[in-house]
Amino acid sequence: MNARQQVIRVGVLGAGTVGAEVAARLIGDRDEMRARVGAPVELVGVAVRDLDAPRHPALLRELLTTDVRSLILSSNIVVELIGGIEDAREYVLLALDSGADVITGNKALLATHGPELFAAAERVGAQLAYEAAVGGAIPIVRPLRDSLAGDHVQRILGILNGTTNYVLDRMDEHGDSFESALERATELGYAEADPTADVSGADAAQKAALLAGLAFHTSVPLDAVPVEGIEHVTLDQVAAGRASGHVVKLLAICERLTDPSGAPGISARVHPALIPRSHPLAAVHGANNAIYVEASAAGSLMFYGAGAGGPETASAVLGDLVSAARRHVIGGPGLLGSVSAALPVLDPGLVTTRYQVTLDVRDEPGVLASLSAVFSRREVSIETVVQSRAPGSGTATLVVGTHRASESSLAATVQDLSRAGEVAAVRGVLRIEGE
Amino acid sequence: MNARQQVIRVGVLGAGTVGAEVAARLIGDRDEMRARVGAPVELVGVAVRDLDAPRHPALLRELLTTDVRSLILSSNIVVELIGGIEDAREYVLLALDSGADVITGNKALLATHGPELFAAAERVGAQLAYEAAVGGAIPIVRPLRDSLAGDHVQRILGILNGTTNYVLDRMDEHGDSFESALERATELGYAEADPTADVSGADAAQKAALLAGLAFHTSVPLDAVPVEGIEHVTLDQVAAGRASGHVVKLLAICERLTDPSGAPGISARVHPALIPRSHPLAAVHGANNAIYVEASAAGSLMFYGAGAGGPETASAVLGDLVSAARRHVIGGPGLLGSVSAALPVLDPGLVTTRYQVTLDVRDEPGVLASLSAVFSRREVSIETVVQSRAPGSGTATLVVGTHRASESSLAATVQDLSRAGEVAAVRGVLRIEGE
Repeated sequence: MNARQQVIRVGVLGAGTVGAEVAARLIGDRDEMRARVGAPVELVGVAVRDLDAPRHPALLRELLTTDVRSLILSSNIVVELIGGIEDAREYVLLALDSGADVITGNKALLATHGPELFAAAERVGAQLAYEAAVGGAIPIVRPLRDSLAGDHVQRILGILNGTTNYVLDRMDEHGDSFESALERATELGYAEADPTADVSGADAAQKAALLAGLAFHTSVPLDAVPVEGIEHVTLDQVAAGRASGHVVKLLAICERLTDPSGAPGISARVHPALIPRSHPLAAVHGANNAIYVEASAAGSLMFYGAGAGGPETASAVLGDLVSAARRHVIGGPGLLGSVSAALPVLDPGLVTTRYQVTLDVRDEPGVLASLSAVFSRREVSIETVVQSRAPGSGTATLVVGTHRASESSLAATVQDLSRAGEVAAVRGVLRIEGE
Repeated sequence: MNARQQVIRVGVLGAGTVGAEVAARLIGDRDEMRARVGAPVELVGVAVRDLDAPRHPALLRELLTTDVRSLILSSNIVVELIGGIEDAREYVLLALDSGADVITGNKALLATHGPELFAAAERVGAQLAYEAAVGGAIPIVRPLRDSLAGDHVQRILGILNGTTNYVLDRMDEHGDSFESALERATELGYAEADPTADVSGADAAQKAALLAGLAFHTSVPLDAVPVEGIEHVTLDQVAAGRASGHVVKLLAICERLTDPSGAPGISARVHPALIPRSHPLAAVHGANNAIYVEASAAGSLMFYGAGAGGPETASAVLGDLVSAARRHVIGGPGLLGSVSAALPVLDPGLVTTRYQVTLDVRDEPGVLASLSAVFSRREVSIETVVQSRAPGSGTATLVVGTHRASESSLAATVQDLSRAGEVAAVRGVLRIEGE
């Protein structure tokens, strides 16, 4: 390949929430994309059904086309985000047969026609990538395929549908009924107007089939995945679970098993289940997703994050896109230590955070006021003070919580404090992070 | 490349805990490796200092060699697990210059000589992979490099050292002093005989430099990472943190910042910090590691698992090895939908789990005994029964928790129950998973 000179031509099929986001990022982050890939990445067009639909962003107007086939045949990488099954299948096959890489978030397509599409990709040596199809922005496809490629996955427990997790979480935490929790999910935009695919477990089952195939290096047809939804989960069951230290989650379970003769096999299934409150999955609240993987050597791993949403899903699509584009440029998966940005490491004194400062001070009137002045002179603002006295000792311990301040201001404050006559000792400083 | 005929020759440098485990898995999983890679993967030798050291496993005796250079020059993939810096650097450069891919778990080497080594890899188009260097078995290098390649990482908060997390967890949960918690960590094998590199934060700082480089597509020298260890964290500070709803963790923090002029830059640092108890990282207990990533589009992601250990680290090394080997065979990162195993999907009736069965029954003497008989006839063993009465209604509700039973036995039991005269209704069945 005439590496560094080439332009990577990208065609996006579909301008819905995710498609429009992907297209906008390809335009807005053009320079960064170029640096990360090692060649220009050009959005050559966005295929839509109706050029004049009012929802299309102005930014994309000039790139819109209804000629899907021409767009596909002029692209090195095709991003399929039109959804549905039969049209998507036709376009993906056309793209792969032309030698283009395909990136899709279409779990229904893959769960239905996966083997045919992967065979088409293999035939021409193209990539068919689908990180966005399972767990939204959570990287799980690549870890299962690559990072755990030398291990044996024994079991996966996945919370793969945000809507149902939100509903069950409301039932558990707030005692909402199924109906009112679902209504709330719809109001908040977590659930579709028709939430059947979520509530019935059908959405999770498609993802379970994909995960089981990846984890066990095989192909799992969708109709081999038994499914139960959450429609019949009652508040009584949730309460009984709570009483026994459990919480109800809609789980996708993929596991290695043996049949009665001892022969190995696998199972993939989706159903509501009680899990112990101490299990890491029990702490997955709201519309989040998480995938808990048990592997022979790696032990237990968990991958957690937002399972849906336009920007989140676009992040997964763009990750696949950069990887595919790098392969066009350098013929491999990219350089793990490559430097494409030149961001300087800033002076640590510029970092800002909150602090907890512990001081031993003289137990005298006016000490607090004079120490407050030390903090404020350095522009460090005090949020909380907790004072404890050791009776008769003449000293007290102050635990001071500050508002956000720079490391350099805090260091100057600590120096001033250690010189202040009222202070017996600065016992310690801890930063407060993650807020 | 003459793809399918070729043999991938692997040389392992070092026969310590991880090296011996990797070598043993290459031998034991030979058939599976071949299927996953698409070509035979042959362990051609294991380089050691002393052929006769008694700790070498018998399995490896015939593969041991002290001639490191010959082993390197006869390998397609070199796995560097000797540790240390200068010898490792020399061997890795020799391997890369010969065109071999290198897989290493040597964070000290990469944090010290990373730019030189990555440049050497880039020169010949070889891979230098190091998933095992950060977070043990947790896939984090690949997700940062590939899955988030189209996103903007804003901040990483990482618990990257298991020993210090164990010590701080003991101080927080059990009120142990720093010294006694560290002693316990040493007894349990979490801490080295000399725990200085862990306790001082030096180990975490090497990992932070690598993560910051990956996340921000730049190179972060180790000496640009300010470090504080946990030696001076006191029980008083832990208690004060607890009182304000926080927990002390040793955090590696990598973030985008701006300097006072508004110019962008980054910071990477390691220090103990208070984080809110509601933060997902607060729930990371014992010697586990976790990496919490905040990205513009993907939102918050967390990667959780065992951060150290022989089999766990070997899992990460083998994942890199399979990916590198696939690249030799098919010239790309491998097929996402490839089928290399032929495990059948078993009859769902064979799956076993525990169940919670909710029944409305007649509130009469002897009902429990007769229903117990229904369960035991189908070989479903009852673990718990909770009975609640609706006074005056003549019915009671039973919540029955079973021991592990097959889906088919449970289905037959439910059918029998629904026909039993004592049962007004089988209200629901929930499976119990994750135990």
